[in-house]
Amino acid sequence: MKKSIAIDMDGVLADVEAHFITWYHRDYGQKFTKKDLLGKTEENAFPKKGMVKKFASSENFFRSVPVMKGAIEAVKELQKTYDIYIVSAAMEFPQSLVEKRAWLDQYFPFIEWKKIIFCGDKSIINTDIMIDDHLKNLDHFKGETLMFSAFHNVNFTHHKRADNWQEVLNILGSR
Amino acid sequence: MKKSIAIDMDGVLADVEAHFITWYHRDYGQKFTKKDLLGKTEENAFPKKGMVKKFASSENFFRSVPVMKGAIEAVKELQKTYDIYIVSAAMEFPQSLVEKRAWLDQYFPFIEWKKIIFCGDKSIINTDIMIDDHLKNLDHFKGETLMFSAFHNVNFTHHKRADNWQEVLNILGSR
Repeated sequence: MKKSIAIDMDGVLADVEAHFITWYHRDYGQKFTKKDLLGKTEENAFPKKGMVKKFASSENFFRSVPVMKGAIEAVKELQKTYDIYIVSAAMEFPQSLVEKRAWLDQYFPFIEWKKIIFCGDKSIINTDIMIDDHLKNLDHFKGETLMFSAFHNVNFTHHKRADNWQEVLNILGSR
Repeated sequence: MKKSIAIDMDGVLADVEAHFITWYHRDYGQKFTKKDLLGKTEENAFPKKGMVKKFASSENFFRSVPVMKGAIEAVKELQKTYDIYIVSAAMEFPQSLVEKRAWLDQYFPFIEWKKIIFCGDKSIINTDIMIDDHLKNLDHFKGETLMFSAFHNVNFTHHKRADNWQEVLNILGSR
């Protein structure tokens, strides 16, 4: 039986970091780089407070987020060896549910709907492997974890790290 | 630590059976009773084929489904002893995602969003107990199962059965 992987959306398949930077520049006129955000928490990443929640609650935010570089090809590759589930904590922002489903249909049409899970917390998700950028999801996971690098997790070292999708393939692809 | 329960929506919290009967009568003029459907599959429950999928894909179907008798009070009661998750196979019908979330907010506002999961299949759901009406969900579940009676499952006996929410409480409430 194939091993199963739960793959996160925001910060892993979807480059929300780049999207936050673009929208912040558009709305507040200040241009940040990914480097500027390194080591910050999501809450204090930008000078204007509450912005992350404001954008995440905005219509079209999740529908228009760019795909993380290399994600499509890598997931296709992993699908040959693993049973792939997309698991996204979408429940906090109800308008994101339909947008995220449409976004997946556009960029990852090879993931069938049976393999998509939108949840609140991820504590009852049971796969062999989890790829995620958030400690709150990885720390309580019972299987093997792979931390996808994001500005808010660069200072943590207690999960195996992948800086990009090529590194994910290097770690998981050769088994 | 509290034991966790995954509670299904359609056929368990939501009386989709009654709703199908109402909509079928409205659209095709024929009035069925719950007794008429006993032992049938969802696909052959009504003379008009494809109706279940047609209704389930219709706007407002899931938003207007009646609550199963006794469900609200019973879930409130179970919440005192158990960690309650609502787990619904909503992914097949994307328009249902927002409707189901709004429906839960209306009738089950005491369930926080962190405890809601919309999925495709339920194979990676890991709770101690599952309450569901569908064999496809119960048969592969690793924990304790409780089959909520529905017309399509009356002839199966390989899961512990609860005919209504009072019976669920009788079985789980006294622990």
